[in-house]
Amino acid sequence: MPELSPLPPGSTIGILGAGQLGRMLVLAAARLGLKCHIYCDVHGPAMDVAATSTIAPYDDYDALSSFAASIEAATYEFENVPLACANHLAKLVTLRPGALALEVARDRLAEKTFIAGLGIPVTPFAEVNDAASLAALLAQWQAHTILKTRLLGYDGKGQISLSPDSIAENAFLAIGRQPAVLERRVTFKREVSVLLVRGADGTVDAYDSPENTHKNGILARSVIPSGLEPDAAAVVHKHARRIAEALDYVGLLTVEMFDLGDSVPIVDRFVVNEIAPRVHNSGHWTIEACIVSQFENHMRAVAGWPLGACSRHSDAEMVNLIGAEVLDWHQLAAEPGAALHLYNKGDARPVRKMGHVTRLRAKSD
Amino acid sequence: MPELSPLPPGSTIGILGAGQLGRMLVLAAARLGLKCHIYCDVHGPAMDVAATSTIAPYDDYDALSSFAASIEAATYEFENVPLACANHLAKLVTLRPGALALEVARDRLAEKTFIAGLGIPVTPFAEVNDAASLAALLAQWQAHTILKTRLLGYDGKGQISLSPDSIAENAFLAIGRQPAVLERRVTFKREVSVLLVRGADGTVDAYDSPENTHKNGILARSVIPSGLEPDAAAVVHKHARRIAEALDYVGLLTVEMFDLGDSVPIVDRFVVNEIAPRVHNSGHWTIEACIVSQFENHMRAVAGWPLGACSRHSDAEMVNLIGAEVLDWHQLAAEPGAALHLYNKGDARPVRKMGHVTRLRAKSD
Repeated sequence: MPELSPLPPGSTIGILGAGQLGRMLVLAAARLGLKCHIYCDVHGPAMDVAATSTIAPYDDYDALSSFAASIEAATYEFENVPLACANHLAKLVTLRPGALALEVARDRLAEKTFIAGLGIPVTPFAEVNDAASLAALLAQWQAHTILKTRLLGYDGKGQISLSPDSIAENAFLAIGRQPAVLERRVTFKREVSVLLVRGADGTVDAYDSPENTHKNGILARSVIPSGLEPDAAAVVHKHARRIAEALDYVGLLTVEMFDLGDSVPIVDRFVVNEIAPRVHNSGHWTIEACIVSQFENHMRAVAGWPLGACSRHSDAEMVNLIGAEVLDWHQLAAEPGAALHLYNKGDARPVRKMGHVTRLRAKSD
Repeated sequence: MPELSPLPPGSTIGILGAGQLGRMLVLAAARLGLKCHIYCDVHGPAMDVAATSTIAPYDDYDALSSFAASIEAATYEFENVPLACANHLAKLVTLRPGALALEVARDRLAEKTFIAGLGIPVTPFAEVNDAASLAALLAQWQAHTILKTRLLGYDGKGQISLSPDSIAENAFLAIGRQPAVLERRVTFKREVSVLLVRGADGTVDAYDSPENTHKNGILARSVIPSGLEPDAAAVVHKHARRIAEALDYVGLLTVEMFDLGDSVPIVDRFVVNEIAPRVHNSGHWTIEACIVSQFENHMRAVAGWPLGACSRHSDAEMVNLIGAEVLDWHQLAAEPGAALHLYNKGDARPVRKMGHVTRLRAKSD
């Protein structure tokens, strides 16, 4: 597809996926006078706010072609978009980020191989295609590890923790006998994420990196500032920028990293855990703490607009509302200074992200 | 209609009117997981983001009844809603603010009479029903005045400035020979507005009052803080609160006041220019400078939710983009630290409000 000049206000951007990330992308686009068309195989909360919605399978190429004809550019809110779907769309309309980012980020093995190939530290990993290769690795490594499916993993799904004496056959069965990656469990001081945005013209900017804490494999809380020293912040941004440029990435890219601590030499200190070719839960605080949020900057990049400043005016804490935690909505709404976000996802099922709360504090640095 | 308990997330709020205020109300409601149904006699920009829209005349009572049946509460984004429409709706569903606020605010004579009756200063005014009564007033007052139609005025429409020697017949013709109000033109130091929110339980809070400047009768710029001394700020809030309580108001109420200057005794210093029973252009800066905006607080009140804090974390300046000014969108999008809002209203016709820009600064007080 030819390069876009900036899409004028009033243009329509297509989004694959209809979850809360899509919903917040639609709301950010609306501020700029941009309309959205949501395409998803099931109904989702983004459809409540989008100008247009299509519910159709991701392999319905007629529906995808109609979708492409109704929009001026396309993006996606999740990395498990089938590649054939992305490639079909990319032939008809500008897709940002492109199919390469999807191809790399949706497959844990491709992702780790790609990042390691850029000279950026990743957790030690190996390919696992059967129980025998897993058994050999467990015996050889003699370490605590995590076995993860290559495809379709998120929020701790499709993975299992192993010790050196775990039974390989059982573990491989537990993840559904799928192509997988075995990762060495590393001891880290904290997890941070880089929320980097790259414009269609190659301009790069990044939000300050939050520190993230997880509960049961799901992000529970992001805090900004993370306390990273300036030289450390520069290194994590440099890693993320190298990844974005290697992917010729356009949009918001998230890179989750483990901080091994300041006793480790700075070039080895930050280990990439995973990347997400999209806006990210750990960047929700940018809605309140920055003049231009991660969602708006993603849509600006997709539309070929100038990026907005990533600087923050306030410190912030973002806490997810998982499952039944959302039932406290009335109390949270009454909390002075709390910004409550509810995704209108229906039943508050366990482990379902139902909303989040952001609290601001005066800027400390 | 019986009192509502708080509407649960997922509920639908109906909004009469489909302009940019409705659009920003929908976006704020979406953050809380509330859906919106827009009802308007023409297509408008709020419909791009609403879950449901109805285009039908305001006197189509069947359409209004269907609308009422599809929502859990109703509100409006403009004060020129026909009273019969509001009364019809109010019989079927909770309408907030209520019909009394509309009845008072849509008619300049009723509004001024009501406010003066509360002991709050208003500009000197008199009813005008024909050219003869106007001629008599011009002769008697010997002052600079403004003749305004009682109904359907906004953004400087339906009004004309007069001097003592203006020809009454011509002036009355110029405003369409309609029932009108003659107002004495007062010399004021500045205009401020109070953005007050009153919850369904009677709780009251207010944003800090911005100073507003107009160009050709249309708001051009709002700046916060306005520099009002604390005792002066307390007086304007007290005036606005008295009006809200007298109207048994639920939602965001705007009161525009002239500040005659600190040489005037404080009880006489602030003169109400007009009220708007809705969110207001002079409160758009609350989207960025406060954790809960005027739009969200209005929807919280309508839904019977606890109000959010009205405190601001930053100083702000809001500048409207009128008519062709919006054509600078690309340059404004590139301005660091500017929050650009475009309403997607189509043609940039003169005097049409097409968008606005908010700039934040560190809090100074």
